[in-house]
Amino acid sequence: ASNKKLLVLPGDGIGPEVMREAVRVMGWLEQNRAVRFDISEDLVGGASIDVHGVPIRDEVIAAARAADAVLFGSVGGPKWADVAFENRPEVAILRLRSELELFANLRPATVLDPLVGASTLKPEIVRGLDIMIVRETVGGVYFGEPRGIETLADGSQRGVNTEVYSTHEIERVARVAFELARKRQNRVCSVEKCNVMESGLLWRQVVTRLGRAEYPDVELSHMLADNCAMQLVRNPRQFDVIVTGNLFGDLLSDLASMLTGSLGMLPSATLGTADADGRRPALYEPIHGSAPDIAGTGKANPLAQIASLAMLLRYSLGLDDEAALIERACTNVLASGLRTPDIMSEGGTPVGTSGMGDAVLAEL
Amino acid sequence: ASNKKLLVLPGDGIGPEVMREAVRVMGWLEQNRAVRFDISEDLVGGASIDVHGVPIRDEVIAAARAADAVLFGSVGGPKWADVAFENRPEVAILRLRSELELFANLRPATVLDPLVGASTLKPEIVRGLDIMIVRETVGGVYFGEPRGIETLADGSQRGVNTEVYSTHEIERVARVAFELARKRQNRVCSVEKCNVMESGLLWRQVVTRLGRAEYPDVELSHMLADNCAMQLVRNPRQFDVIVTGNLFGDLLSDLASMLTGSLGMLPSATLGTADADGRRPALYEPIHGSAPDIAGTGKANPLAQIASLAMLLRYSLGLDDEAALIERACTNVLASGLRTPDIMSEGGTPVGTSGMGDAVLAEL
Ligand SMILES: CC(C)[C@H](C(=O)O)[C@@H](O)C(=O)O
Ligand SMILES: CC(C)[C@H](C(=O)O)[C@@H](O)C(=O)O
Repeated sequence: ASNKKLLVLPGDGIGPEVMREAVRVMGWLEQNRAVRFDISEDLVGGASIDVHGVPIRDEVIAAARAADAVLFGSVGGPKWADVAFENRPEVAILRLRSELELFANLRPATVLDPLVGASTLKPEIVRGLDIMIVRETVGGVYFGEPRGIETLADGSQRGVNTEVYSTHEIERVARVAFELARKRQNRVCSVEKCNVMESGLLWRQVVTRLGRAEYPDVELSHMLADNCAMQLVRNPRQFDVIVTGNLFGDLLSDLASMLTGSLGMLPSATLGTADADGRRPALYEPIHGSAPDIAGTGKANPLAQIASLAMLLRYSLGLDDEAALIERACTNVLASGLRTPDIMSEGGTPVGTSGMGDAVLAEL
Repeated sequence: ASNKKLLVLPGDGIGPEVMREAVRVMGWLEQNRAVRFDISEDLVGGASIDVHGVPIRDEVIAAARAADAVLFGSVGGPKWADVAFENRPEVAILRLRSELELFANLRPATVLDPLVGASTLKPEIVRGLDIMIVRETVGGVYFGEPRGIETLADGSQRGVNTEVYSTHEIERVARVAFELARKRQNRVCSVEKCNVMESGLLWRQVVTRLGRAEYPDVELSHMLADNCAMQLVRNPRQFDVIVTGNLFGDLLSDLASMLTGSLGMLPSATLGTADADGRRPALYEPIHGSAPDIAGTGKANPLAQIASLAMLLRYSLGLDDEAALIERACTNVLASGLRTPDIMSEGGTPVGTSGMGDAVLAEL
């Protein structure tokens, strides 16, 4: 098999620290399994602003397009709080999503048994939790036009954004959700605010029609976004796959992640459409942010970044065995009691970023 | 003192059942305290659709405008799921908010000590919780134009909504939050998505400016909406007053309510601007919905509706003592162990809607 081209974008804050551990795991794979990588690395976010004046360069977008997959860290931090809106660190990830048309963000929220105590929710509510949120990521209010801030004659201002979804955009992300459900518990819950927003009403109609026509075997339900926020707290295990728009998905997937109490553990994948050769653009990133408060202290948990690599192996490279190997190594390390500060609990053995990386490699 | 004009709008589902108990409390006040009401009642929501073909009549809007305050139940239910978008039951509450310019929705999320076990969160996380969410309710994506669903030449469709906020709209709701904070713990957290939406960026700028100019004594912080959803689960007691837009407020206030585990207990107030005579339009409603699944079974918890009446007495009629009397009666009834099914826990004494009402009256 030819070498796999990976683009590694560590970003800001703890991004580079946790990425280092993921890269070590790639090294292990090259030495011990039948897989070879061409790894290139570049700056994004604040790190790119500092050097190049922009959060992401066109060359980096092009490299991402040419790669088999992108492994992303995290961007942003207080250092860049006053950068102009068009040039803020977040533009790096927004441009990658938009220009590679990475429209489906897969965000698992799972509770591993050894970490059930890390949740602020009662163990009987979250034990065994396994939700997959499919969030649309290239449409909605994130990219809708018109947008901007205008100053009126009297000096007052108006800020405007546009929420817009088309049949096609809704169908393609719903399809991803239905397909995933078939490999899971076969249930999709579609979420919007159709009692207030016409874009949500169209969303519900399109998902309903698609479900009836192409996925009659998948159980489809609908929920208002405010109710979904409540139900995630009341009884999160009622959900299998949730599919929703960009903005609701942003809040609800973060909420679902926090139910697990272990943000530092959770990976995500963002997928585009396969081209004629079957190549599908894809980006993998931990769901945690750049955590500037602990950057440089060696305390960050690298497991979400390593788990993102495992997702990359599975979804982009078809290396299911290697993905499972890595996931098992992470679970075993946790079962042995090692804990970074974010998931520490009584009786755990404290360990830092590189110590956790060492343990995963030893386990492998 | 002249009679207080109250408009009572029970609505659908459990609305009429819980409203009955609140009206009994009004009767008690008339007999035992120096207050007289002129109470008129009307249909809203599905109940109004069934009789009048519309979810709310212009006469009802006019009556709401003329009243000292409106006590609202809840609207909606599966029976009206197929009513046209412009005529759905929710239009009743949306028109009341919009036409009376009820721009500030006050949503307390508090955990009473006897109910700390009702939460799905661990008691040490929610004990003593006392958050006040101030949600903007006449702007944002709920009312922004253009909006609608359009069909394109190729038969595909686009759903559009517009998120828009002006300086004036942001200032007036932020002022309500700052004023409330001064009577509480003096902290305001303003929530938006300024890293993605210009309307959120303007929101942050306007709140910051207002805070510096007029409320320098109040501690102001800012949080992204996705992070706020997480922080409400991780450590909800970090918040005092939260101020946010219509859509984020819808999700976050429901989420905050659910942290308490006792939706059936929580009231809300929605306030407008005082006119030259100091009359301020106001509507009070429980935060729970119409709960069609238990309507007619006599199981609904009337305490949120009764607590909404207490808020009405305090904010609209200046009857602080009477409000406190009612609130104390509700707390005592809970302390005595009476529980409707929604807040039932081991050792509680089961009671229904009217039984709970009886107990509150007995306590008074
Ligand atoms: C960094 C930011 C633009 C982003 C978003 O809002 O989508 C983040 O919160 C996420 O969820 O990936
Ligand atoms: C009934 C509905 C229109 C309403 C809203 O979305 O504002 C409700 O969810 C609320 O929070 O009061």
